[in-house]
Amino acid sequence: VAGSSAGRLEGKLREKTLTLDTLNPQVKAVEYAVRGPIVIKAGEIERYLEEGGTKPFSEVIKANIGDAHAMGQKPITFLRQVVALCTFPELMDSPSFPEDAKRRARRILQGCGGHSLGSYSASPGVECIRKDIAAYIEQRDEGVPSDWENVYLTTGASDGIMTILRLLVSGKDSSRTGVMIPIPQYPLYSAAISEMDAVQVNYYLDEDNCWALDINELHRSYQAAKQHCQPRVICIINPGNPTGQVQSKKCIEEVLHFAYEENLFVMSDEVYQDNVYAPDCQFHSFKKVLYEMGPEYFNSVELVSFHSTSKGYTGECGFRGGYMEVINMDPEVKAQMVKLLSVRLCPPLAGQAAMDVIVNPPQPEEHTFKQFHQEKSSVLGALAEKAKLTEKILNAVPGIKCNPVQGAMYAFPRIFIPPKAVEEAKALGMQPDMLYCLRLLEETGICVVPGSGFGQKDGTYHFRMTILPSIEKLKVLLGKVRDFHIGFLKEYSGLE
Amino acid sequence: VAGSSAGRLEGKLREKTLTLDTLNPQVKAVEYAVRGPIVIKAGEIERYLEEGGTKPFSEVIKANIGDAHAMGQKPITFLRQVVALCTFPELMDSPSFPEDAKRRARRILQGCGGHSLGSYSASPGVECIRKDIAAYIEQRDEGVPSDWENVYLTTGASDGIMTILRLLVSGKDSSRTGVMIPIPQYPLYSAAISEMDAVQVNYYLDEDNCWALDINELHRSYQAAKQHCQPRVICIINPGNPTGQVQSKKCIEEVLHFAYEENLFVMSDEVYQDNVYAPDCQFHSFKKVLYEMGPEYFNSVELVSFHSTSKGYTGECGFRGGYMEVINMDPEVKAQMVKLLSVRLCPPLAGQAAMDVIVNPPQPEEHTFKQFHQEKSSVLGALAEKAKLTEKILNAVPGIKCNPVQGAMYAFPRIFIPPKAVEEAKALGMQPDMLYCLRLLEETGICVVPGSGFGQKDGTYHFRMTILPSIEKLKVLLGKVRDFHIGFLKEYSGLE
Repeated sequence: VAGSSAGRLEGKLREKTLTLDTLNPQVKAVEYAVRGPIVIKAGEIERYLEEGGTKPFSEVIKANIGDAHAMGQKPITFLRQVVALCTFPELMDSPSFPEDAKRRARRILQGCGGHSLGSYSASPGVECIRKDIAAYIEQRDEGVPSDWENVYLTTGASDGIMTILRLLVSGKDSSRTGVMIPIPQYPLYSAAISEMDAVQVNYYLDEDNCWALDINELHRSYQAAKQHCQPRVICIINPGNPTGQVQSKKCIEEVLHFAYEENLFVMSDEVYQDNVYAPDCQFHSFKKVLYEMGPEYFNSVELVSFHSTSKGYTGECGFRGGYMEVINMDPEVKAQMVKLLSVRLCPPLAGQAAMDVIVNPPQPEEHTFKQFHQEKSSVLGALAEKAKLTEKILNAVPGIKCNPVQGAMYAFPRIFIPPKAVEEAKALGMQPDMLYCLRLLEETGICVVPGSGFGQKDGTYHFRMTILPSIEKLKVLLGKVRDFHIGFLKEYSGLE
Repeated sequence: VAGSSAGRLEGKLREKTLTLDTLNPQVKAVEYAVRGPIVIKAGEIERYLEEGGTKPFSEVIKANIGDAHAMGQKPITFLRQVVALCTFPELMDSPSFPEDAKRRARRILQGCGGHSLGSYSASPGVECIRKDIAAYIEQRDEGVPSDWENVYLTTGASDGIMTILRLLVSGKDSSRTGVMIPIPQYPLYSAAISEMDAVQVNYYLDEDNCWALDINELHRSYQAAKQHCQPRVICIINPGNPTGQVQSKKCIEEVLHFAYEENLFVMSDEVYQDNVYAPDCQFHSFKKVLYEMGPEYFNSVELVSFHSTSKGYTGECGFRGGYMEVINMDPEVKAQMVKLLSVRLCPPLAGQAAMDVIVNPPQPEEHTFKQFHQEKSSVLGALAEKAKLTEKILNAVPGIKCNPVQGAMYAFPRIFIPPKAVEEAKALGMQPDMLYCLRLLEETGICVVPGSGFGQKDGTYHFRMTILPSIEKLKVLLGKVRDFHIGFLKEYSGLE
C-alpha cells in the first residue's frame, strides 16, 4: 500500500511536527466540562441510537448546556424579524413585517458600512448599537450614567471575558497574576486561566447559605493566594452559574469594597441579569451598587460587566452576540484593548443586531409591544416555574439536596455518593460524580455535567443540569433522575 | 468636586490596577496597521467633516481594508435569501423566496439544535455544513479526497489562524517557536506572533519577480532562524495579501517539499482562492499540489488551509464565517483542538450558513442559477478590470512601480520617497511611508496603509490600497494619488 511507505524518507523516520508532546502545554491544561467527556459520550450514544442501536431509552436529553432553542424554546419573533430585515433588506417592502421592526433594522443598517450587515463594523461595534446599549444600561440602573464609548460589542460574553483576561495576564510575569474565581464556577474561567497560564485563586461559595458569597471567605482566599502570586482580578458571576444564586445588594457592596481596598480589577459576569425567579430576589448590577457607594468608589474601581444574547428570554446562543461595559479603565489601556480587538476585526454583525433588539425592545406605544411582551413573559414565566419544580422534585429524593434556583438556568444539587461508589470511581481513575453522571447517561439518556467540572468542596459531589426542557419533559427527566439515584444508592449501599 | 477626592483612601494613593505599565507586555507589542493609527486618523477626519468642518475633499475614501460592501459592492442575493430564511423560517411560506434557497435553508436548519440558528452548534460547526464544505473541496481539487471530519468552521479565517498558532506556540518554551511568514504579510500574523510571544521568522517575497516566493530565500530564512529559535510552522498567503501574487504550482511544490524536509507545519491562507484575475494565473490549492506529489507527502505533511466568507465574490465580512481543513493532524492533537474550540462554544451560525451557500451555490439546473451566476461574474469581472486599471494608472506615475495585481484585492505599489522626506519622517519618529500616507490622507481624504505595516525590505517604501471602490471612484482615487505623488516628489526634491 502506498500509505505504508509514508512516514519515511530515505530511511529517516518522519515524525509529526505537532504531537501531544510538542503541543502548547497550556492548551493541554485546559478543561471545559460543559462540552467535556460526558458530552462526547452523549454524542456517541445519540449516533448509536440513530443507527438503530437500542438502549433503555429512546433519546438523549442534553441538560448539560444552557442552549434554550435546542431544548425547544421558540425565538422571540420581533428579534428574528429585525435580524431578517437587516440580512435581506428587500423585506422592507413586505407588508408582513411590522413597522417597528423595520424602523430598528433601518437604523442598524444606517450604522453599517454600505448599509450592509456584510461590512466589518468598527472593532468596538456599530456606533448606534453601542449607544442603544448605553441607554439601556442607564435605564436599567435608574439613571446611573453610561458612556457609549465604554461599551464594546463582543462575540458572546466568552469573547469579552477572554479579552479582558488577556490584558491582565502575562504568562511571563515573574510575580504571576492571580485571578480570583468563585467555586463552583463556570469553567470558561478556569479554562482561560489555564490557557493563559495565570494562577487560579478559588473563593468558595457557601452552599449552606444558598451559595451566597461570603466576604470572610474572600479575605481568606486573597491572603492565602498572596503567598504565591499577585491577585489582580476578581471574577463574579451574578446570577450564579452553575449555582443559580442571586447576590444581595449588601454582598455586592462588600465585594466592591474589598476590590477597592485590595486594588483588584472587577469582572462581573451578568449574562443572567434577566433570569431572576425567586420573588424575594432582585438583580443589582455591580455598576449601580458601585455608584451608590459614592464617587470615591464610582470614580476609581475598575469594573467590567458582561452581557450576552445567549441567555435571558431570547436564548440566542448561535448569534454569538454580547457586550461589555468598561468603567474606570485607564485610557491608554483602553487604546491598547481597541488595538487588540481590531486584530479580530469585529464581532459578527447579526449578533450585534440581535443585541440591539434586546436592549431596545418594543415600547408600549409600538405595534409589536403586546406580542413581544407575551412571548417574553411566557419564556420567563415558564423558567420560574421550572426553577421551582426542579428544586422541589430534587429535594424530595433521599440523598439529594438542592438549593433554590433563584436565577440563571441551572440547578446544582448536591448528591450523596456512597463510599463504595467513591472507591469504585477512584479505582477507575475518575471523579465520583463523573462515575455517577456516566451511569445516569448510560441508563437514562440524561446528560448532565459532574460538579467536579465546576469545582466543589472536597468530599462533596454535585451535578449541573439546565432547567430548560419543557415542563412535561422536565418532569419526566426529574423522575428518571430520582429513580436512578435511588437505584444507585441501593446498589452501592448493598441494600439490594 | 466629588471626583477630586476619588483616587485617595485614607491618605493612600489609589492607583489603577491595570495601566500601561502592568498591561500584558505581549498585548503592548501587538501591531495591526490595517486598523492602525492612520485609520484612527481617518475616522477623526470623517467626524470633523460630519460636524461641518472643511477639508480640500468632501469625503474620506477608505481603501485601507478589504471591506467590499462598505465600498458599495452588493451582496449576492441568493446568499442573503438563504440566511434570511434560516433567521426567520416563517419566510418559508413566502412565494417571493425561491425554492432552491428554501431547500438549502431547510437543510441547514435540520442540522441545528431545535432547528434554530439560535442554538449552539457543535464546536467544529454544523455537521451538514462541514459535509458540504468537504464536497466543495473535493470538487475544487478535482477529486482529491476530503474528509468532513477534518473540516472546522471558524469565526472568519482569523479565528482559525489564531487557533492553530495557539496549539503550536507556547510562550514558556525554552527553545522558542519560530513562525515563518512572508514579508510583506497580512499583519494578523505578526500580531498573533507578538501576542503569543513566538518568534517571527521573515522570508522575503521577490518584488522584482511579481512578489513570487523564492525557495532559496526560504532556506536562507530558515537557516538564519535556527540560530536562535526552533522554526516549526510556515505560513503562506496565496493569493497574496498585500502583494496580490498568485503562486505557481511549481512554487507550491517547492514550499511543500521544503516543509516536508524540515518538518514544518504548513498554514495555507487561501481566503482569496476565488480572486484570481490574471489570465495566465490559476489558483492551485496547497492540498491538491500535496496530493499530486504522492502519498509519501500527502500522508505526512501537516497542512491547514483557511477560507472565509469575507472575500471572494461575496465579501460577507460582517458574518464572520470561515472554515479550515486540517490534513495529517495527530488525532490526539485534534482532540485537544476540539477541546480548545469548545471553550468558545461555536462560530456564529449565520456565518456558518453563509459559508454553506458559498460552497454549495446554485447549480445549472436550479432556478436561481442564472441570477447567481450573473451577480458572481459581475463582481469578479469588475474586480479583474479594477486590478488591471490600478496597475496601469499607478505605473504611469513617475516614482511609483506596481506589480500586476494577479489576485486578491490589493495593489501594493512601491513608492519612491525623496531623501528629504525620509529625513523629515525620521525627525518626526515615524516611518517614511507613514508620513506619506498621512499626508495623502490629509490632502486627498484617501486612506491607505503604509507598507511598513506589512513589512518590506529596508529602504523600500510601499502602501497597500484595495481595488474595491467602483470603477468610477477608483479612477478618481488613482488620479488623486497620482497628483499627490507628483506634488510630494516636487516638494521634497526642491523642484518647486
